[in-house]
Amino acid sequence: MNEDVNGHRHLLAIADVDRDFIISLLDSARSFAEVSTRPIKKVPALRGRTIANLFLEPSTRTRISFELAAKRLSADVISFSRTTSSISKGESLKDTAKTLVAMGVDAVVIRHSSAGAPKMLTGWVDCSVVNAGDGMHEHPTQALLDLFTMRERLGHLEGLKVAIVGDIDHSRVARSNIQALNKVGAEVLLVAPRSLLPERIEEMGVDITGSLEQALEWCDVLYLLRIQLERVEESRFPSLREYTLQYGLTKPRWQNLKRKPLVMHPGPMNRGVEIESSVADEVESVITGQVTAGVAVRMAVLYELLGGSHG
Amino acid sequence: MNEDVNGHRHLLAIADVDRDFIISLLDSARSFAEVSTRPIKKVPALRGRTIANLFLEPSTRTRISFELAAKRLSADVISFSRTTSSISKGESLKDTAKTLVAMGVDAVVIRHSSAGAPKMLTGWVDCSVVNAGDGMHEHPTQALLDLFTMRERLGHLEGLKVAIVGDIDHSRVARSNIQALNKVGAEVLLVAPRSLLPERIEEMGVDITGSLEQALEWCDVLYLLRIQLERVEESRFPSLREYTLQYGLTKPRWQNLKRKPLVMHPGPMNRGVEIESSVADEVESVITGQVTAGVAVRMAVLYELLGGSHG
Amino acid sequence: MNEDVNGHRHLLAIADVDRDFIISLLDSARSFAEVSTRPIKKVPALRGRTIANLFLEPSTRTRISFELAAKRLSADVISFSRTTSSISKGESLKDTAKTLVAMGVDAVVIRHSSAGAPKMLTGWVDCSVVNAGDGMHEHPTQALLDLFTMRERLGHLEGLKVAIVGDIDHSRVARSNIQALNKVGAEVLLVAPRSLLPERIEEMGVDITGSLEQALEWCDVLYLLRIQLERVEESRFPSLREYTLQYGLTKPRWQNLKRKPLVMHPGPMNRGVEIESSVADEVESVITGQVTAGVAVRMAVLYELLGGSHG
Repeated sequence: MNEDVNGHRHLLAIADVDRDFIISLLDSARSFAEVSTRPIKKVPALRGRTIANLFLEPSTRTRISFELAAKRLSADVISFSRTTSSISKGESLKDTAKTLVAMGVDAVVIRHSSAGAPKMLTGWVDCSVVNAGDGMHEHPTQALLDLFTMRERLGHLEGLKVAIVGDIDHSRVARSNIQALNKVGAEVLLVAPRSLLPERIEEMGVDITGSLEQALEWCDVLYLLRIQLERVEESRFPSLREYTLQYGLTKPRWQNLKRKPLVMHPGPMNRGVEIESSVADEVESVITGQVTAGVAVRMAVLYELLGGSHG
Repeated sequence: MNEDVNGHRHLLAIADVDRDFIISLLDSARSFAEVSTRPIKKVPALRGRTIANLFLEPSTRTRISFELAAKRLSADVISFSRTTSSISKGESLKDTAKTLVAMGVDAVVIRHSSAGAPKMLTGWVDCSVVNAGDGMHEHPTQALLDLFTMRERLGHLEGLKVAIVGDIDHSRVARSNIQALNKVGAEVLLVAPRSLLPERIEEMGVDITGSLEQALEWCDVLYLLRIQLERVEESRFPSLREYTLQYGLTKPRWQNLKRKPLVMHPGPMNRGVEIESSVADEVESVITGQVTAGVAVRMAVLYELLGGSHG
Repeated sequence: MNEDVNGHRHLLAIADVDRDFIISLLDSARSFAEVSTRPIKKVPALRGRTIANLFLEPSTRTRISFELAAKRLSADVISFSRTTSSISKGESLKDTAKTLVAMGVDAVVIRHSSAGAPKMLTGWVDCSVVNAGDGMHEHPTQALLDLFTMRERLGHLEGLKVAIVGDIDHSRVARSNIQALNKVGAEVLLVAPRSLLPERIEEMGVDITGSLEQALEWCDVLYLLRIQLERVEESRFPSLREYTLQYGLTKPRWQNLKRKPLVMHPGPMNRGVEIESSVADEVESVITGQVTAGVAVRMAVLYELLGGSHG
């Protein structure tokens, strides 16, 4: 979390936060998770605050997750996406954001196709900024909800063995998770063909393998990335069939395992590509658990940025 | 109303409910109708509950009616339609619904082009489901608001003589109304050319005529269905001109009547097709009354499913 | 403000209101502006009321401004625009509006491409109507927020010298501002080529000049209109380059001024057309101040129409 000269707090990247912040946020998220199990799923923590959802890349899951998080804290939410908004036509992100803030917005939750857009925003606006995914850079709340899920299911994070499988190079989810896992003392193994790994990724403190079998033997958590089908056309990507053969969690692979890892996925799953449909059905409760955790973690983030007595 | 093994209650079809449920729901709707006449049109009945509007077929009236019903019960609402939602792209209805429910949604209100989609949903999700129209199957809240309107205007339902005019075969509104009217002891007469009647429709306990004049002599309520103009191209449909001549409520037909029935229409009306514009103006207050009743009936349904002490 | 025979109050045009109304509304807006500076930016003034945003022309700024104004008064808001609404397809504005009102809407805020549409609406519906911009006719809340900004910044309105620069002929913003400024005793000078001035505009009590230099010497407030780029193709419009040369607030023009006027713009600015980007940066705080004023003024308008003890 960053705090700017005006005392506004932002969540832009896992790179900016330390272990203590992560752990304290996960603790706070646990209390908020309890709120969502009550018949009255609402606390007055952010009553009268206004949160703007500025989603300039298509997204429904993350947008609705932030919207619900804000509403359960009793905040008002204004949402706009590229499609419904004339504001973004012929107007720069800067002018759009300044307009929002002039209307009295307390936080902007932004998804943008360019890495660094949320950080630029903090230089322009007089309010908190939350990165909801920026280009191939980071998606910090996704990493936090993933860690939350691992800790709730397995009881601890330190020393946890996490294998991340897929197109690491294009994945902001992977970038945020690798750093978050490192910070809390988990070990990370990347499973991917060399062509889908960023250069010098080893410097991030991870191990690498091309063998899913080896990873399955080793890991406590198997984290499958979503294959973006439009990338498969690119030259350095294997064919879908080849990808599934080498890196897909197929039924035989799954059934052969004596000790089954926790299988996670940021959703939505490509059934039949990164995971066989029958295996997906078996592990589905963890993946919907990630969705549930998402609301709780985002409540904790918004509360931390806007509701705390710091800043 | 159905109750599933987990204790969740659903409203999927008029076929599933009995007379007592209908009458008790209409009684409850009467109290909620009173709420909408107050300066402060809001009760705290469902505060902290979350209702998802999942409209996968274009609709504004019904969607806004459910949205207002939920808000007047103090529930939070999240809405998404096919157009604004990337969630439905490349993701099955099942995965979309599971994601919503994982976020802590208490009820899904669904409109879908396939008959049976709401029922399928109940097998997948751990929350209440309301059918807001599924293909050519049912539209149960429409039938309930129609009965509400008839009872408020005419004082009773039992023995009421209702003529339903138009394209019965493609109409989920007709299917739900026929069953609801049968259950409360009203008599139903269908007015349509044979080509627009489903086979073996007589088995639903209705009479049939091809003569609007005969129906007008007989009925207490004349229920005009909306002609879907895109169907007129189909071979078994008469031309528009022919339809209006035979089945339209024209000014001469209306003026000739000694005893005028209550004229109803689910809206929006095709002025000049199923009803002449000047007649529409005369009977408009009943039709806007149906719209008003819609909010009250949907408040009663949501309250019955989520707020009751049963289940 | 108009009051109809049913006691509903409307804000349709500055032409309809008098000086006292304007001044009292600006006073009321000042109190509401204070609400937006609080941590809890909300008052219960319109709790349980429902406001419909019916935006049939693209707009995000004004729509969100009204939405926030309503939410800060604790009202419920339903929004629909041309794109998301099937209600407007094949259904007249009249039937759409009647449907909304039948659902219990207390006020309709309407933007429409046809001059006079808001006024027509008042004849059809049993609720308050606010004009949020109708064709080339009026945009009354824009004028009110502009006057609010002038008064807050310069301390008074009477005797204020305001130059309005640009395409007066197509501008509802200009039409509303000219009338509002006249009513409160300000002087108005229009700066435009003859081809962009309506005929007989002098009868509105304004002076005219073709010289921006002359206006800059004279004015306390320089109000730049937004150039609608699609109009530039039309024959009576100068080329963009020519426009900027003659009527643009360029850096040399700005730097040469000994006494700098307050620069205002309804937004979004075309940087490099009606104003040079570096000048825009210098005067930006006033323009975002207009945006902030917009929420306060719209809160005052909605409260005046719906919350007052009159009517």
